[in-house]
Amino acid sequence: MNTYSIGVDLGGTNLRVAAVTRAGERLDSISLPTRLSSGPQVVLDDMAGAICELIDRHANRELLGIGVGSPGPLELPRGVLHHPPNLPGFDGLNLRTELERRLDRAVQVDSDANLAAYGEALLGAGRTFASQSLFMYTLGTGVGSGIILDGRIWRGKQGAAGESGHGPILPEGPKCGCGAHGCLEMYASATAVVRRARELGIETPKHGAVTALAIAELAKAGDERALKVFDEVGYTLGLSLAHLVNALDLPLYVIGGGAAAAWGLFAPRMFATVREMSYVYRMSMPTDPNVFQLGKTHIAPAQLGSDAGILGAALLPLSEPAPVAQ
Amino acid sequence: MNTYSIGVDLGGTNLRVAAVTRAGERLDSISLPTRLSSGPQVVLDDMAGAICELIDRHANRELLGIGVGSPGPLELPRGVLHHPPNLPGFDGLNLRTELERRLDRAVQVDSDANLAAYGEALLGAGRTFASQSLFMYTLGTGVGSGIILDGRIWRGKQGAAGESGHGPILPEGPKCGCGAHGCLEMYASATAVVRRARELGIETPKHGAVTALAIAELAKAGDERALKVFDEVGYTLGLSLAHLVNALDLPLYVIGGGAAAAWGLFAPRMFATVREMSYVYRMSMPTDPNVFQLGKTHIAPAQLGSDAGILGAALLPLSEPAPVAQ
Repeated sequence: MNTYSIGVDLGGTNLRVAAVTRAGERLDSISLPTRLSSGPQVVLDDMAGAICELIDRHANRELLGIGVGSPGPLELPRGVLHHPPNLPGFDGLNLRTELERRLDRAVQVDSDANLAAYGEALLGAGRTFASQSLFMYTLGTGVGSGIILDGRIWRGKQGAAGESGHGPILPEGPKCGCGAHGCLEMYASATAVVRRARELGIETPKHGAVTALAIAELAKAGDERALKVFDEVGYTLGLSLAHLVNALDLPLYVIGGGAAAAWGLFAPRMFATVREMSYVYRMSMPTDPNVFQLGKTHIAPAQLGSDAGILGAALLPLSEPAPVAQ
Repeated sequence: MNTYSIGVDLGGTNLRVAAVTRAGERLDSISLPTRLSSGPQVVLDDMAGAICELIDRHANRELLGIGVGSPGPLELPRGVLHHPPNLPGFDGLNLRTELERRLDRAVQVDSDANLAAYGEALLGAGRTFASQSLFMYTLGTGVGSGIILDGRIWRGKQGAAGESGHGPILPEGPKCGCGAHGCLEMYASATAVVRRARELGIETPKHGAVTALAIAELAKAGDERALKVFDEVGYTLGLSLAHLVNALDLPLYVIGGGAAAAWGLFAPRMFATVREMSYVYRMSMPTDPNVFQLGKTHIAPAQLGSDAGILGAALLPLSEPAPVAQ
């Protein structure tokens, strides 16, 4: 009998559910608006309904498991949300047990950033670079990150690992909502790109809507101020990578999310900065062929786009046992 | 039959070899000067000789394995040294196979900072805080670090993990020999404490010798400039910890090495900085009892002093299989 699993991507705007084979091939999917204004119970009912719909459609296959990715903060392995800024009204909700009760089946829950990293590790950049370990940044409205070590998600003691979007990258920089100064999220998120562009006086031509994409277009056309914005993205990403490369010495660092589409604009400064600031990186990527070379350190764009998270969610229950219900 | 294992601590000044029980009790030890000027083959002969001497003395016990800690850079798991600054003349030496050839037994080799972290995890702070995972800084001539995740040393792809003594903690700070600006090692090592004290014009009373210990004594006596030096140690340690806490969410961070004896002088600023700069730390250590609390994040002094490395070396072969000889 053929098998499959189900992945769920719970976003603040859309709720997506997909049936996926063990090899990562997408068989089918359902996409709904996330009805936040109707409250979490309705959103959970919608989610359970879409999952049951997929189960019905694929009744000739054996369902191996269900994985759900959610914005955080998410306490793991329990699956409880704590004041999630992108899911107002969900504070204190146990996403896992609420869904298990509706489905009468075990469910795995993890953060969207962890599952994007997991998807990239198994089916994207990790496969390309033959690496079981990676660190992934997701550059979007904020900066999320996830860590895969030897093929497993590193969650920290209760799910708070992978918050490298926050932390004092430039300790003299502006204060972030998290309390630190000069966080990566203050420079490298799509939100930050728009804010910095406004600070530098950039006005985009199309209807006055300043988006990160519009600023990237300006930069590609040679606008000096727009180029400066992406140069700062590259510099701060390079500083953050230098810390991670020196601490963890992973073979692969992946940059995904919408803002990663501007790779060509920020990558030169990013590579120059990590090369200057991390001697572990330089040992791994020597320019002098006579120098001893550690195994390569790859820094590469993500390959799965916005599908990384839902594919990671579907594959999660195939490798990790469900936690015991509490 | 009773059992034991042997740990070796190869330092630039002293070579120490100890026989240790599975429970971490030291049965016996031999300490020799490291005869660097005679070359690496003589040092290896001395090491093998001391190991054989311990084996002879404990012939009534079964030897379970031999672990060796060495200054780096050390390529793992091969055990090859690459331009180690504290072991001149050892470049390119395969410490593991050289020793295995002399002893006709399997040997495990790892960096001294990794093994100090491993020793603290099994017998020191890790036992006190019931934690299988920790990050340990060793503040000495330089700043070393080691990472233990779920009871195992995280080495990175070829042994370069745990270099958090280097990296752009203060990107506008002075340039370090590693190429980065404002590394932790530029502020928190014993060497840095002495350099900063001199820059601030401190002269110590005893024979003019400015040591980190003498500066700590001045600070304890209320000298403003000496207090400032240790305040900078605390600030930069706090910034480095904020990055690590946000990235890894470990339950325990340990600070050891000689300079850690000045804990009372740098800890207040260190805790204030990590509390300000890491919201993951604040979530784990809330001051408001009504706030949801993640499992605690402990930051604590090391407990085993200079024995951590040799105990970690002795315990290493008890948990990890020897790599296959190449």
